[in-house]
Amino acid sequence: MKIAIAQINSTVGDLDKNTEKIILFIANAKKAGADIVVFPELAITGYPPEDLVLKTQFVTDNLSCLEKIVKKSCDIAVYIGFVDRVKDDLFNAAAFIVEKKIKKIYHKINLPNYSVFDEKRYFKEGETPSLVTYKGVKIGLGICEDVWVNKSPYLKASKSGAKLMLNINASPYHIGKIKERGKILSALARKTKSYIVYVNMIGGQDELVFDGGSMVFGPKGNLFASASQYKEEMVVIDLEKKEKINPWLDHPSEIYGALVLGTKDYVEKNGFSDILIGLSGGIDSALTLVIAVDALGKEHVHPVFMPSQYTTDQSYTDSKILCENLEVEMLEISIKDVFDSYLKKLNPQFKGKPQNIAEENLQARIRGNYLMALSNKFGWLVLTTGNKSEMSTGYCTLYGDMSGGFAVIKDVPKTMVYELARWINSVQFAVYSLQKRKRVIPQSIIKRAPTAELAPNQKDQDTLPPYDVLDKIMKAYVEENKCRGEVCDLSGIDEKTVKHVIGMIDYSEYKRRQSPPGPRITPRAFGKDWRLPITNGYRQR
Amino acid sequence: MKIAIAQINSTVGDLDKNTEKIILFIANAKKAGADIVVFPELAITGYPPEDLVLKTQFVTDNLSCLEKIVKKSCDIAVYIGFVDRVKDDLFNAAAFIVEKKIKKIYHKINLPNYSVFDEKRYFKEGETPSLVTYKGVKIGLGICEDVWVNKSPYLKASKSGAKLMLNINASPYHIGKIKERGKILSALARKTKSYIVYVNMIGGQDELVFDGGSMVFGPKGNLFASASQYKEEMVVIDLEKKEKINPWLDHPSEIYGALVLGTKDYVEKNGFSDILIGLSGGIDSALTLVIAVDALGKEHVHPVFMPSQYTTDQSYTDSKILCENLEVEMLEISIKDVFDSYLKKLNPQFKGKPQNIAEENLQARIRGNYLMALSNKFGWLVLTTGNKSEMSTGYCTLYGDMSGGFAVIKDVPKTMVYELARWINSVQFAVYSLQKRKRVIPQSIIKRAPTAELAPNQKDQDTLPPYDVLDKIMKAYVEENKCRGEVCDLSGIDEKTVKHVIGMIDYSEYKRRQSPPGPRITPRAFGKDWRLPITNGYRQR
Repeated sequence: MKIAIAQINSTVGDLDKNTEKIILFIANAKKAGADIVVFPELAITGYPPEDLVLKTQFVTDNLSCLEKIVKKSCDIAVYIGFVDRVKDDLFNAAAFIVEKKIKKIYHKINLPNYSVFDEKRYFKEGETPSLVTYKGVKIGLGICEDVWVNKSPYLKASKSGAKLMLNINASPYHIGKIKERGKILSALARKTKSYIVYVNMIGGQDELVFDGGSMVFGPKGNLFASASQYKEEMVVIDLEKKEKINPWLDHPSEIYGALVLGTKDYVEKNGFSDILIGLSGGIDSALTLVIAVDALGKEHVHPVFMPSQYTTDQSYTDSKILCENLEVEMLEISIKDVFDSYLKKLNPQFKGKPQNIAEENLQARIRGNYLMALSNKFGWLVLTTGNKSEMSTGYCTLYGDMSGGFAVIKDVPKTMVYELARWINSVQFAVYSLQKRKRVIPQSIIKRAPTAELAPNQKDQDTLPPYDVLDKIMKAYVEENKCRGEVCDLSGIDEKTVKHVIGMIDYSEYKRRQSPPGPRITPRAFGKDWRLPITNGYRQR
Repeated sequence: MKIAIAQINSTVGDLDKNTEKIILFIANAKKAGADIVVFPELAITGYPPEDLVLKTQFVTDNLSCLEKIVKKSCDIAVYIGFVDRVKDDLFNAAAFIVEKKIKKIYHKINLPNYSVFDEKRYFKEGETPSLVTYKGVKIGLGICEDVWVNKSPYLKASKSGAKLMLNINASPYHIGKIKERGKILSALARKTKSYIVYVNMIGGQDELVFDGGSMVFGPKGNLFASASQYKEEMVVIDLEKKEKINPWLDHPSEIYGALVLGTKDYVEKNGFSDILIGLSGGIDSALTLVIAVDALGKEHVHPVFMPSQYTTDQSYTDSKILCENLEVEMLEISIKDVFDSYLKKLNPQFKGKPQNIAEENLQARIRGNYLMALSNKFGWLVLTTGNKSEMSTGYCTLYGDMSGGFAVIKDVPKTMVYELARWINSVQFAVYSLQKRKRVIPQSIIKRAPTAELAPNQKDQDTLPPYDVLDKIMKAYVEENKCRGEVCDLSGIDEKTVKHVIGMIDYSEYKRRQSPPGPRITPRAFGKDWRLPITNGYRQR
């Protein structure tokens, strides 16, 4: 039996475009001689459709798209995800279509309602595992979570004699997730002595990145075939033959791939062609710039250097070289005069008060205003450059460096920013458009001590603990949800420092709530899987 | 039997403060001779604790608070909400405590997971209805949602002979909600031929306002006793006597009460004493100022008038009179010089391009920067002044007038802003601190045509349809989740206008995502109950 894995990039809500794409993939699968073509979970609506599914008309429209697809399914079976409606109940569903007829509809039994998932907000749980017989083969049907649970419906399908399991997914990326999937699938294939065809979505959707990497496991738990990561593609496999296996991307290239795809899709799916980035001479904006150039092409990327009286020559030189290396034009607008103008107008109120965060934030906000003014004038999207260590501790300015539509490295801790920068400089190629270019990021950007340059001789480490210390605490507290004692034990860091960092994290919730979305690359980002109250009196004793 | 309704204002996460308060209310209830004192749902943790309950230590701490409370429950029974843990499962629970012992723990059976609620993210569903016998009376126990469902556990309790039902709540306010509650409770009291004691929380928590208004219904479905709205208080009722009934607040005073309490609690629970408001001479900032003065007292409120070349004399005079009426000092800082300074620096990029939204937004952003600079200098919180009609259509500036910590009238449509302003001017008193003051808002503010004053002779209605039209469309589309055809039918407004407004609403998601929270007063606000993707290709055909 020949199976086509249609690893497509749906756009949430764009039913017509998704349907066209699906019909095209069906035609191509037919041409390739496949018996079945398998699409991702909720391929018609995109994932996650969120409150769109609460619109009656939206569900109706998705059902008429399914009808259109059914009509195109001549000479090939199709397994595809959609939103089903039975009376007033909605289901995360999949249709098995044969010869222009829906042979079976499966309703997802196990609805994830944790982390970034809210499926119980929308869907009713399905009740019965599904099985179809097609061309003499018994096939077990399921969706996503169904392979992750102990009481997997595939076990029941296996008992009924199924030798092939179809599992469709919209499984968001985080570091190492593909290996986790592989383990689970291998074990289930062995347990059910069947082929498991795991089809994942690819593409960026707001904060989520679907990394693709669809795969097929054989009855002995062996990886039998696989598709690329971060790439829309169709892979046709023949269960009777030995198939080619794509090796997974290494660390940190898999992270880089997620950041590039997440950025590209956010920008393009929201109708933008060009982006703006405030360039400081630091490593965060350098990394963001490389990602943007790789995602969108150098002609669409507009870095802006905005010096103040505290900006060093090195910041300027490094930024200039970086832009030359990437062949992008650097705009320059000084903030000095505008800053002076503000201070003059605020003088009646500020007179006699010591300089503080007010003057520092003002500089960041003038830069934010410049970028937004250019955005408003030219229709370019602003990308922000703050990293996860800053987002955790609130070491960033609301309406300043946080101004923008998409926060590219929002979920990347500072130590990983360095790791990615060094990796970029070491590789001969990059995932998308950057070609054979060595050391695009000047060494001095990587080597100098981090500084916001908002006050004379300022260094990040005047305010924050060293980033390797901060990131260990952040990871344990934020990503692993540990309490203070556990953080100390795990990290070996003293309680005073841990308490200080946790205090900053707790206190900064109001800033994060007003931050733009950015691609999630860790098991817990500041987005849908981080729902802490702003008004929060909890301070661990 | 004498029952004390402890309608308390818990702070989310502040376990120690909440516990102290609970112990104080227990002591007072005892003094008043009550047999039972009843506290709201999750009174120990506050509601909603959100991802705090995913912290193991937080749940442990809440359990030790319960222990403390148990020890204080001598000579009086206590029914109180907390987070229970059984092995790894968490429950939205309530304890019935008698003589320093937990006699019964009830696990909430019906977990809301729609609208603003995410209870299935955190809690496992309880399985069995609970009944206790205390002083010879059989009492049915339950939490919140349990009275709203068809298969109410109280029906089972009633069949087992319960004559008194305790129902504890954290039920957020929206317009007219108290009447809905009353209807449901009256019907259930009649059906079960029992007394229902409905205890609600009061207080603001981020976007939610708990309005109190606890009530008791008698076996014939009659309202037997009630507590105030928007007020922390204890009401002791004697089931053998005729009790006093507080009349509910009229429209629109109930809305005003919610806005004042929501604002007061956000500011104070987040540790601020003073606030800043940008005053434009328009009705939105006038209403926001009145609410702030009522919530916090005039000495804590700092309005800032920030004129530009487009600001009219009338805006100045009206603002000045408003501040005099409210006895608050008005700061004045012109944005003209700073604006000129920006235009000069941006000239190399802007030269030859027509004036557009870039120059308009820049003015709003300078004002935002002024307010944030004052905020950073003095430690005062900025309140924003945008209304729901603006938030819907995106008629507001990110990092400009949207800059601030709390958006007081974010959920108030423009037509309701007028209604509230007229009401404020007509009443002899206000809910909190404003006293016997007539016509605080100058008539000219109410009467003039709305304008952002960001361009010469600009009027809102150059860009937007009249607000009565816009608000009808917004209400049907946003609050009632209707599709385009239904909106046209319901409102009688032409399809072209409806399509235009819906287009603006859909398009503005990216702005709303970065907006500060504000008190929810309608059945659907832009907050937890509005989860639309930013990247969204759905445009209804």
